[in-house]
Amino acid sequence: MKYLVGNTKSGTAVFAVKGDEAVNLTALDAAVGSDLMALIGDPALAESVAAKIDGAPSVPVASITPALPVAKPGTIICLGLNYTDHIKEGGYDIPDYPALFMRGKNSIMAAGAPLVRPTCSDQLDYEAELMLIVGKGGRHISEADALDHVFGYTVFNDGSVRNYQRKTHQWTPGKNFDDTGAIGPIVVTPDEVPEGAAGLKIESRVGTEILQSSNTGNMIWSVAQTIATISEYTTLEPGDLIAMGTPPGVGHAKKPNPRWLVPGEVVDVEIEGIGICSNPIVDEKDHKAAGASA
Amino acid sequence: MKYLVGNTKSGTAVFAVKGDEAVNLTALDAAVGSDLMALIGDPALAESVAAKIDGAPSVPVASITPALPVAKPGTIICLGLNYTDHIKEGGYDIPDYPALFMRGKNSIMAAGAPLVRPTCSDQLDYEAELMLIVGKGGRHISEADALDHVFGYTVFNDGSVRNYQRKTHQWTPGKNFDDTGAIGPIVVTPDEVPEGAAGLKIESRVGTEILQSSNTGNMIWSVAQTIATISEYTTLEPGDLIAMGTPPGVGHAKKPNPRWLVPGEVVDVEIEGIGICSNPIVDEKDHKAAGASA
Repeated sequence: MKYLVGNTKSGTAVFAVKGDEAVNLTALDAAVGSDLMALIGDPALAESVAAKIDGAPSVPVASITPALPVAKPGTIICLGLNYTDHIKEGGYDIPDYPALFMRGKNSIMAAGAPLVRPTCSDQLDYEAELMLIVGKGGRHISEADALDHVFGYTVFNDGSVRNYQRKTHQWTPGKNFDDTGAIGPIVVTPDEVPEGAAGLKIESRVGTEILQSSNTGNMIWSVAQTIATISEYTTLEPGDLIAMGTPPGVGHAKKPNPRWLVPGEVVDVEIEGIGICSNPIVDEKDHKAAGASA
Repeated sequence: MKYLVGNTKSGTAVFAVKGDEAVNLTALDAAVGSDLMALIGDPALAESVAAKIDGAPSVPVASITPALPVAKPGTIICLGLNYTDHIKEGGYDIPDYPALFMRGKNSIMAAGAPLVRPTCSDQLDYEAELMLIVGKGGRHISEADALDHVFGYTVFNDGSVRNYQRKTHQWTPGKNFDDTGAIGPIVVTPDEVPEGAAGLKIESRVGTEILQSSNTGNMIWSVAQTIATISEYTTLEPGDLIAMGTPPGVGHAKKPNPRWLVPGEVVDVEIEGIGICSNPIVDEKDHKAAGASA
């Protein structure tokens, strides 16, 4: 199944995507709600509503404004260094444990929404990443069982403000500017992609300029290993988000000059078989002027 | 005002503490609810219920089992290095920007609850810290206005699993083991303490053994500076928690041998004028056996 959470004239709903058309699942069964949490928590509901799709009315995918797949994720955990060449371009040694950091909920927004360059920095960078959404929660999940805990996969742009990321050894500030982490719009269930979403082409682009181009098969830590590693220390819960790190080609490492994002550009992050997360870069002062919450 | 959120036979409620006695504010006005969020969001409610305390029935503080002051904090941000001597004992340079990391909600629990030593490590350490609870939210809060955004102060034990904290340069795993960060039990409003809660003695102890002893006046970044710094990159929201870093004396730096916490011990963290956060150390396997959620 390919899910799309989004807004139409009649409110926020969960859609099932078939090609260029989408069926409103929330209209078929109000229990589906306005994000993926109900489907994540109730596999029987997902099954029953899926059985109603054939013959149901559909709308063009293009008519839907994406919203966050999980409106209020409990925890967002990100791998910092998961592709060998990206580790080298950042000047880091290859670790034997993933570099893990967290993002807060104000740092994320839906595909299509403005990706905000803050007033205090011009070092806004993109990072194409695979993101998984936890289905079944748990602690001490074994690597062998880990993929049973995945609800689905989506696309993530782990927007980073580099000079704030490196203010100290802890990356938190540069990874947590408001409205810099773009998620979505399509969430695919695991049956739609290879095991662990490995072997998928992953790219970031601005227009025809290819910024990053790699394959999720190049990840050092697989999805299953990552779930096992994280759940050694914390209980994962349904709807938690895990971002799997970015391949080489990030802007701060471009030669001879860094390639920062500037307002007016649109960044596309695409993962084969999942979709494209596309966000316009907007200056903070213009974002505020447009009425965004401050 | 000194608030205490806790459980009695009749459920979880917010109490006002006067000496050894506490008045159930939730019983005086159901709108107060079962944690501090309603009072944080509605200063008029706090004022109206405060006016009903005199003459209201009270119960002994000792009869109340503490619960989290904010049941589901949206964001928990922690300063890593905020006392000069603690920075030196950890082998770090004194930075010109605070080292910031985040804790997830599964890593925290109330004062009095088991502080869990995980099966995978014996390097469980204590960290006495001042914690502030955000009252009024905002972005780009100036240092001059910052203290207007504080709802209150409480005590925090930033329990850390040191070998997991230093698996990589990112501290997340060692700071996020389930049930290692103890909060509470008393929350004081700013009028109860000096400006910015500075100048207060802060200690951690096991029985009569003094582990850390310092003063919040020794913090490098004040509460006001910290709020200004964090709100430069993210919008703070009511009920967000900010932990202000720990003074020297942590277990991993003790000479000639580290001083790790072991099951059976009880750790007390005390801040002058606020209270004592006291938690028993419990082995993970015994915590599970006692029926805690896994």
